[in-house]
Amino acid sequence: MTKSALQIARAAYQPKLPKALKGAVIAKEGEATQSVADQEAIKALFPNTYGMPLIQFVEGEAVEYPAINVGVILSGGQAPGGHNVISGLFDGIKKLNKDSKLYGFILGPGGLVDHKYMELTAEIVEEYRNTGGFDIIGSGRTKLEKEDQFEKGYEIIKELGINALVIIGGDDSNTNACVLAEYYAAKKYGVQVIGCPKTIDGDLKNEMIETSFGFDTACKTYSEMIGNIQRDCNSSRKYWHFIKLMGRSASHIALECALQVQPNLCIVSEEVEANNMSLDDVVTYIAQAVATRAAEGNNFGTVLIPEGLIEFIPAMKKLIAELNDFLAHNAAEFAMVKKSQQREYIISKLSKENADIYASLPEGVARQLTLDRDPHGNVQVSLIETEKLLSDMVAVKLAQWKEEGKYVGKFAAQHHFFGYEGRCAAPSNFDADYCYSLGYTASMLIANGKTGYMSSVRNTTAPAEEWIAGGVPITMMMNMERRHGEMKPVIQKALVKLDGAPFKKFAACREEWAKETCYVYPGPIQYFGPTEVCDEPTKTLQLEQAK
Amino acid sequence: MTKSALQIARAAYQPKLPKALKGAVIAKEGEATQSVADQEAIKALFPNTYGMPLIQFVEGEAVEYPAINVGVILSGGQAPGGHNVISGLFDGIKKLNKDSKLYGFILGPGGLVDHKYMELTAEIVEEYRNTGGFDIIGSGRTKLEKEDQFEKGYEIIKELGINALVIIGGDDSNTNACVLAEYYAAKKYGVQVIGCPKTIDGDLKNEMIETSFGFDTACKTYSEMIGNIQRDCNSSRKYWHFIKLMGRSASHIALECALQVQPNLCIVSEEVEANNMSLDDVVTYIAQAVATRAAEGNNFGTVLIPEGLIEFIPAMKKLIAELNDFLAHNAAEFAMVKKSQQREYIISKLSKENADIYASLPEGVARQLTLDRDPHGNVQVSLIETEKLLSDMVAVKLAQWKEEGKYVGKFAAQHHFFGYEGRCAAPSNFDADYCYSLGYTASMLIANGKTGYMSSVRNTTAPAEEWIAGGVPITMMMNMERRHGEMKPVIQKALVKLDGAPFKKFAACREEWAKETCYVYPGPIQYFGPTEVCDEPTKTLQLEQAK
Repeated sequence: MTKSALQIARAAYQPKLPKALKGAVIAKEGEATQSVADQEAIKALFPNTYGMPLIQFVEGEAVEYPAINVGVILSGGQAPGGHNVISGLFDGIKKLNKDSKLYGFILGPGGLVDHKYMELTAEIVEEYRNTGGFDIIGSGRTKLEKEDQFEKGYEIIKELGINALVIIGGDDSNTNACVLAEYYAAKKYGVQVIGCPKTIDGDLKNEMIETSFGFDTACKTYSEMIGNIQRDCNSSRKYWHFIKLMGRSASHIALECALQVQPNLCIVSEEVEANNMSLDDVVTYIAQAVATRAAEGNNFGTVLIPEGLIEFIPAMKKLIAELNDFLAHNAAEFAMVKKSQQREYIISKLSKENADIYASLPEGVARQLTLDRDPHGNVQVSLIETEKLLSDMVAVKLAQWKEEGKYVGKFAAQHHFFGYEGRCAAPSNFDADYCYSLGYTASMLIANGKTGYMSSVRNTTAPAEEWIAGGVPITMMMNMERRHGEMKPVIQKALVKLDGAPFKKFAACREEWAKETCYVYPGPIQYFGPTEVCDEPTKTLQLEQAK
Repeated sequence: MTKSALQIARAAYQPKLPKALKGAVIAKEGEATQSVADQEAIKALFPNTYGMPLIQFVEGEAVEYPAINVGVILSGGQAPGGHNVISGLFDGIKKLNKDSKLYGFILGPGGLVDHKYMELTAEIVEEYRNTGGFDIIGSGRTKLEKEDQFEKGYEIIKELGINALVIIGGDDSNTNACVLAEYYAAKKYGVQVIGCPKTIDGDLKNEMIETSFGFDTACKTYSEMIGNIQRDCNSSRKYWHFIKLMGRSASHIALECALQVQPNLCIVSEEVEANNMSLDDVVTYIAQAVATRAAEGNNFGTVLIPEGLIEFIPAMKKLIAELNDFLAHNAAEFAMVKKSQQREYIISKLSKENADIYASLPEGVARQLTLDRDPHGNVQVSLIETEKLLSDMVAVKLAQWKEEGKYVGKFAAQHHFFGYEGRCAAPSNFDADYCYSLGYTASMLIANGKTGYMSSVRNTTAPAEEWIAGGVPITMMMNMERRHGEMKPVIQKALVKLDGAPFKKFAACREEWAKETCYVYPGPIQYFGPTEVCDEPTKTLQLEQAK
């Protein structure tokens, strides 16, 4: 296998561990916990895993542990550092007992159900330390939700003599990990289930989980690119760059990148929704900033756009809902309409309010809304090129203002979408250390007989030495939410808080950033330089954890 | 000004210089030179700057130099390291005499003509050392070609007491630098003109100019991103990523990235042209690789596509030529055709051969070819989304093969275009050192009274200490070419040589890369680590310079 010079050099990196995990540890138990809301309902659903105490690991006496077999699953979208969770877990269980074994289930939770697995030997794990990606065993999006899946999984678990499963995933995967933990506990199968908080989106966090892994590296990688684009923008002085950023619903990535690079504009979906902004409001906001800069002779700038924006615009949400509903019931009739008449047809069928919005959309987007549908017949919002939609509409508005004498300038746009560029980047030192610690902590939770816990590493803005490792009962993070028409226990998704420190910092600066050119150029992630260059956590984390 | 931690740390980097430039130097002159072709014609056009000797700087005795005033111009597209050429030049002329002054002309060659300039003081230069971008004075695309421009320039040159101009640009800008040098020499204005080889595209190189600056950093930045995408691709195993890369006509960037990341496929425009491949041939080549991998259960992969591909497909070139010609003469009539009938209209008007090709193109591209035209009425080939065009056509072909039972698999594509992400990246150590050396060398050429020379730093695969600094008469690189219907003296553009070492290496590996998954993950550019990680030149340079 050919490797780059950096791959080779980086393989030798020894991730930093919290001090307490360096030697023998004992579990210090805190008080019993409660779910964040709907306590009675959650308690009823999780009789065996509700109300468990918080765990913190502290230095202790060496104890002899029996060998254990552990299974590990990567669930959902990739995030930098997944391989380090696995290597931390591997090193942890090997330290407990050198005869412990680690099995990896192939291509996600489906591997457990379909009995596809491999043993992760020292040799294999060695190849993946400090690397990005989930390619060691692959990931997948199968949801572990049903009893027959749990039972199918139990078959292979029994066969391999597995004592515990570690599920590395986002909020839904961790919810399902807890349902599985509860199920195995209720059945007295003696199989522990531990979760690990993964997602570049940054929307799995709360009081006990300071950040999900991968967010740090992904944001730094996107910020490197955006910084480079800003330098270009400020050199050639002739383009507005519309940059869409992955992150699903929440705007954490866009906000973090904004704090890192100081763009001219950054749209925050949560604010758009809170202020009940229309698409035209968003367009006007951007166009106004373009016009203000143009008046100073600056016909260039950058706009960051969160991937999930469209669904946070209340009016667009309503339009999409009506379109989904209408097309579900009239698919056959719609299929008969000539392509050139589809737009008029749709306009004639929608309510007045939604018809007006639909009519205002550029042709390409309007077509996307009616043509590209997922297997359930729903509009695939993620396919909408929001960055082009916005720049097209801004161009139309500016042309109108120009006619009215309200705008003098030139407007030319470039478009970018960053997602796949960051999900599998080699982890930053932060993510390498954090993930390794999460995996190692998971092994300690297993050793202490815990189930239904999420591995937790806190105090992450301090040096790694001072990080606090422990476990959080997953039920503690749950509330009841309506999903597909049914009330379900789920981990609360963390959207950007408009009263949180990161957004407030951004809000305090953004007028200046919009008008002036205050670009910051973060550059590529560094692994070998001074600590302030190599080990700094995200701005989001620094602001959130600032005392 | 807010700066990132890396910006601050990187500002302290002292670029490495060739040993000969560290102390006092003298110019060692070689034999008289000749142009690469059309010697008589070039000699006639450049009576004052033709046939000059090669220059090499070697260690010498310290000499006292009078203070000089130098003007510097950034011409054309940005390339990483431009600021270091300026800082090397600044340090060089200050070392010659501390009262020397450097003036920067604003926003490219236009700044010279329009008398827009600023003095580049130590304080200003300090802010830009080792940074990407051309924002210190901005760049521009004005071509210095006409006598009245030369005369306007001379006015401000006289006013500022400027002894020499340094023009940092690509092949055309350096050609113009030489024309300007010749003009000022003929007029005995006493103004020297020195060029510096800049372009990320890598197409300004020859025996004496081993590489143009910026190519190293841009390729490494794109390779970082492509590597990340490949890791993602190999983890989720469900997408083919079609990745278009900047680089104008030549495929150097795509080829270098291919050598760095080992993608499944890389199209090389020069080969497509040499083999007289049709668009369908290219599509079939890709589809065949997709089908072969699918047969092994691998429904994923990566394809690198050079920006200039379309114009290298002989049939497409002909189609575009006929379209340009037809639409130039029938613009009014075409404007009257209904949008829904434009395609049929065009097909009815083209020659049979071109009509067939036009009819085979996906609708979006066909429209782009007739609608989006530059101010001269020409198709804007750079706007064609080749990456989408190819994946659309591959999808159609695979669907056809599926019906014929020749293909079993799933094909889903993702698209990327990298350009602005790399043009202004902070320079790698190589580009930081190379550029600084080029700028410093330019100051030595000036001190030695040279004009019509390009700054040259060779032996660049050795440690910087051993680099050879000197000057190459620009006329030496020239030949006569037809441009806009007229024979002009120009620097030969270096396309990818199909018998060159980089292409041959790629060609020797590509079958294996296409079939297997041999991805390499270069990761982000490093500045502080081990030398094999931080200082390695491009694969292209290593292969070309290998003895």
